[in-house]
Formats: sequence, structure tokens, C-alpha cells
Amino acid sequence: MSVHAGLLRLATEGNGEVVDVTEGVRTVVERSGVQSGVAVVFAVGATVAVTTIEYEPGAVSDMRALLERLIPAGAAYRHNELNHDTNAHAHLSAAIIGPSESIPIVDGGLGLGTWQQVVLLDFDDRPRERTVTVHVLG
Amino acid sequence: MSVHAGLLRLATEGNGEVVDVTEGVRTVVERSGVQSGVAVVFAVGATVAVTTIEYEPGAVSDMRALLERLIPAGAAYRHNELNHDTNAHAHLSAAIIGPSESIPIVDGGLGLGTWQQVVLLDFDDRPRERTVTVHVLG
Amino acid sequence: MSVHAGLLRLATEGNGEVVDVTEGVRTVVERSGVQSGVAVVFAVGATVAVTTIEYEPGAVSDMRALLERLIPAGAAYRHNELNHDTNAHAHLSAAIIGPSESIPIVDGGLGLGTWQQVVLLDFDDRPRERTVTVHVLG
Repeated sequence: MSVHAGLLRLATEGNGEVVDVTEGVRTVVERSGVQSGVAVVFAVGATVAVTTIEYEPGAVSDMRALLERLIPAGAAYRHNELNHDTNAHAHLSAAIIGPSESIPIVDGGLGLGTWQQVVLLDFDDRPRERTVTVHVLG
Repeated sequence: MSVHAGLLRLATEGNGEVVDVTEGVRTVVERSGVQSGVAVVFAVGATVAVTTIEYEPGAVSDMRALLERLIPAGAAYRHNELNHDTNAHAHLSAAIIGPSESIPIVDGGLGLGTWQQVVLLDFDDRPRERTVTVHVLG
Repeated sequence: MSVHAGLLRLATEGNGEVVDVTEGVRTVVERSGVQSGVAVVFAVGATVAVTTIEYEPGAVSDMRALLERLIPAGAAYRHNELNHDTNAHAHLSAAIIGPSESIPIVDGGLGLGTWQQVVLLDFDDRPRERTVTVHVLG
């Protein structure tokens, strides 16, 4: 067993943008040659998160609307007051969803459902350059 | 170190059903013979999730009620409009909770708390056949 | 590749206290000598969770306020009725956030963002002694 470390770099618009990183994760897994194992996908940064979703316009739009309803950007937050900042909602959304998911590798491919994609959610309130690490164990 | 891949197959009622998969995960770990490592538990599909909870009727009922309150099945969603579908709430609930958890293996058993069980939550709005992958690293 | 198992023990105040465990996780990783791999951080217990956040007073205060708003301690819960208990909100908060995160190890250190810390959230409604397991794979 070994570790194969990969990196994805991407530019996002922030503001809750949902980016499909499935192909990037799959490429790292295929290059590793691992047939059975786990791909650990991790979003670097405190205002960004990783999960899976059906990546189609409706579900993506609903996800953004849900988080804005539950954790509104315009509410009063101590983070914004204390740090003269504007992205407290981004920190909270990212912490609730979490930065990592572990995707099984089955027969050399990703063991996802047919309509299940791996996504990065960037909640920061401005465009960002992001790094996602993909560590393949197997 | 090696990878031992296991599968759990189960039929659920959907609609937020919470299924205790702890014994299934434990069986895969025991068969692997791994004494120290990690069991990566992953729910295959975009309307199903994995977490831990005290699996007793009260907490299970409260979890279902909480998600229905925060993410109501009957609200207006773009996923349902665009796809002539009815399960947008299921996609959102699954994405918020996430598909994977990594459970430590300690002395050949699961390193859970006394009242902490590994559960699958099926949010789809109909009965489903589900697959949970359990990849043991150790 | 090998497994290095570490344990963090800590006393918390409960009631949503957020504890920065980054240094503890880093110490386990450095002692393992692993240069490239993954640190699986797991909170033992059904009323405690792990995620990442910018550990500064504002974001920590906002996180506690958010969870109290979404999942109020004082609401009516079946868990409390059936078990003559008072911490149903703690079970629900912990299940939503989840017990595990997997942190990449890059060049022998934690592959976190500059403002991204690994935290334990203890939602129970009394002080607790807690265990966090840190399993280093690499």
C-alpha cells in the first residue's frame, strides 16, 4: 500500500459557487494506478467545503438558496464586527458541511453513484484561487 | 498495510429512514483482521448520507423532524421544476450531511463511543435498494 | 505504509464549546514521521463533532449562535421525552456536522489553509472528558 498525492487548482467566483471536481479526482486516481482504496478529497481554506451532490443546475441552485436561507450573508455576525470582515456566513457554511470526503476506489475507478458528483463549494464573498488535495490510499 | 473492501446491501423505506449499519461495518472490519486502522464508510447515491448518532427511537425521530423543518419536502425547488422530480429536499439533506465518515479501528474493533452508532440516512421519497461501501485501511 | 494511532484527551465545558485541536493533531503526525498521507481525526461520542474553522473569537461565537438558532436547546424533542434527558439538541448538532474529518499530510505537516484550524465541538449540556482519536495513514 502507498500514498499518491495529487493537487487540483481552480479559480472560483465564490459566493456559493459549486464546482464539479469529479473529473479532477478521477484523473488523480487513474494516474495512481490504485485498483482498490480510498481517495481523500480535502478543500484547503476556511471558507470552502467538499461534499457530493447531483451536479445539475436545479440542485446546484437549490443548494445555494438553502445555505443563504439558513445562514444569510447579511445577518449580524461577530466575525464581521471583530475583524471588519464580510464573510462570516462563508466560514459558517464551510464548517457545517466540512472540508473532507473520502471516496472509495473500486476496480480502479470512483465508487460513486450514477448521479453523484464530488463538488467544491466556495462560500467566500469574492473570486478565489483554490487548492483541493486528493490523497489516494491503496 | 492493505485494503479490504466490503459492501453492505440494504433495502430502505426512504423518506428519511435512519438505518443502523454498525454491525455490518463491524463484520467487515472483523473479517479483515485489521487491528489498527480506519474503516471508510461511504453511501453510494446522491440522496443518501452517513453519520453517527445514538440509535434510539427518540433521537432518530428528532433527526427526521429536524431535517423536515430545515429542508421541507414540500417547498419550491428548482431541481423539482427542471427535472419534473419530487426529491430535491433529499438531495439537499444528503449533501449537507455528506456521504462518508471514517471510523477508527482500535484493537480490532470500532473505536466508537458507547452510545454512538454508524447510520445510513435515506432521504429519497420512495423505497430504495442501497449500497454502502466499507473500505478497511490498516 | 503503516498506521500510527494517537489519542487526544481533553476536558470541555460542553454547551457548544469549540476546542482547537490542531496542535494535538500536528504532534501526533510529527511523531509518526509520516511525510505524505492522511490524518483521520475522530470524535468519540454521540454529542461531539469535528470540523475545521478559523479559530478566532468571532467565528467561534457565530458558530455557537448558529447552531442554537437552527437546533435550539429548549425546543421539544422526543429524545428528551423518552429518555428523561436534556441534550437532544446536542445529538442532532453532532450528527449534522459529523464525527470525522481527514486531513492531508503534506511534507510532514498538516495540509491546512493558513486560517483553517481543526476543532472539536462539544454540544453536550455539561462538562465532559473527551477522547479524539488521530490515526495517521502513510
